[in-house]
Amino acid sequence: MEMTGKAEVGDELLTPEQLRARLLAVGEARYHHRHPFHLRMHAGELTKAQMQAWALNRYYYQSRIPMKDALLLAKSDDPAFRRAWRKRILDHDGDQDGYGGIEKWIQLAEASGLAREQVIPCTGVLPGVRFAVDAYLTLVRESSLLVAVASSLTELFSRDLISLRMDLMRVHYPYLVPGLAYFTGRLTQAPEDATFALHYVTTQARTRSEQEQVIAALSSKCEILWAQLDAIDYAYVVPGNIPPGCFVPEV
Amino acid sequence: MEMTGKAEVGDELLTPEQLRARLLAVGEARYHHRHPFHLRMHAGELTKAQMQAWALNRYYYQSRIPMKDALLLAKSDDPAFRRAWRKRILDHDGDQDGYGGIEKWIQLAEASGLAREQVIPCTGVLPGVRFAVDAYLTLVRESSLLVAVASSLTELFSRDLISLRMDLMRVHYPYLVPGLAYFTGRLTQAPEDATFALHYVTTQARTRSEQEQVIAALSSKCEILWAQLDAIDYAYVVPGNIPPGCFVPEV
Repeated sequence: MEMTGKAEVGDELLTPEQLRARLLAVGEARYHHRHPFHLRMHAGELTKAQMQAWALNRYYYQSRIPMKDALLLAKSDDPAFRRAWRKRILDHDGDQDGYGGIEKWIQLAEASGLAREQVIPCTGVLPGVRFAVDAYLTLVRESSLLVAVASSLTELFSRDLISLRMDLMRVHYPYLVPGLAYFTGRLTQAPEDATFALHYVTTQARTRSEQEQVIAALSSKCEILWAQLDAIDYAYVVPGNIPPGCFVPEV
Repeated sequence: MEMTGKAEVGDELLTPEQLRARLLAVGEARYHHRHPFHLRMHAGELTKAQMQAWALNRYYYQSRIPMKDALLLAKSDDPAFRRAWRKRILDHDGDQDGYGGIEKWIQLAEASGLAREQVIPCTGVLPGVRFAVDAYLTLVRESSLLVAVASSLTELFSRDLISLRMDLMRVHYPYLVPGLAYFTGRLTQAPEDATFALHYVTTQARTRSEQEQVIAALSSKCEILWAQLDAIDYAYVVPGNIPPGCFVPEV
């Protein structure tokens, strides 16, 4: 299927609207709002132990985002671009200890019943989650600035997912309510970031080949998010599947 | 647990026997002979479609092994070491087209009912498998020669697993019998390679810290093998779990 796709790619530049439509189609088909684990979560089917496993494993992703953004900053020789992008590092790390998105994620994990000391060292994270997140850092480290920016475009889709999730968490997992500040912040941050990144790739992808690289980068990033949930769903839904050395819930 | 482990590590050098015992203990606890997917395979519970998914996905690992060994060769300034290690590239790539371990793995995939054209492009490989295998290349690329060699020590355990597997495949999956040449080859290659690597790490790890790096490298490699089976077991055992864009068996 992919080979046929490649053979059919023409040389004509996509219009901004066409590029945007292609990106939205990738998200519709491949973003993790469709993942079985999220569907279970939203249906209220997950136990507290499973929510803990999700919060603990997803923390590894959260903890690597500013490192990813630093790798990306290091690719740009443009102070204006770097000023705009460094907002993301600030959003995650905060201005001082006790603030920022990573701290808020720890508070979500605490609301699920974990101690922050269990979460922060990232011991017990599933290797499948680690390999997927590390693949994201490798992608950003080894690709062009254009592709690195494009890999952030999953944020185009995160507002809707977070908004739905917050509503359903209040219904199905009320013990998490004290830990929802992370999502509140992302409701405004993610669309701002996505608008910037979409404008960037639309103006900077100057050939059809570069536009196809942008689309492929979004697809790769969707795989990275999806594979994390594959690992979590596998390990914590069927008894007996937790890999050696990984987090074992107490509840 | 890992933090406690680190705190208890002393400074005394392990004897070769102690180092070997530590490595065998890692294998006993973490090698993928214990993985649920292998247990299912050996119990004869897997369908032909599931064996196809395994052969197709595992091909990605096979295809990357000589690249891993080339990265490792590039770390050594010793012609004698390189002469010894390059045997592995020869084992996998063969002397001419149509020979070598990778070709034999393709024959195993064909025996499962796949066409070689489905297997070789590696389209349809699970992202979770790709990320785990790529993590192996990254580990070897970014670590010392000692750690890179140590990460191959899973071969200490492969002879027993392959031997058991061949017996059980003949019983449970007789259609695979024409494709078992890969395993026949590995029955002698893997122990030779493991003996060389074990001798190397035993003589080259000259501090306790280096010995602990060797043990940790084996543990990381076990995670890499285990995570591949996690992804395969997740996607192909429960209906509805195949990630977007991945191999869908026809049978």
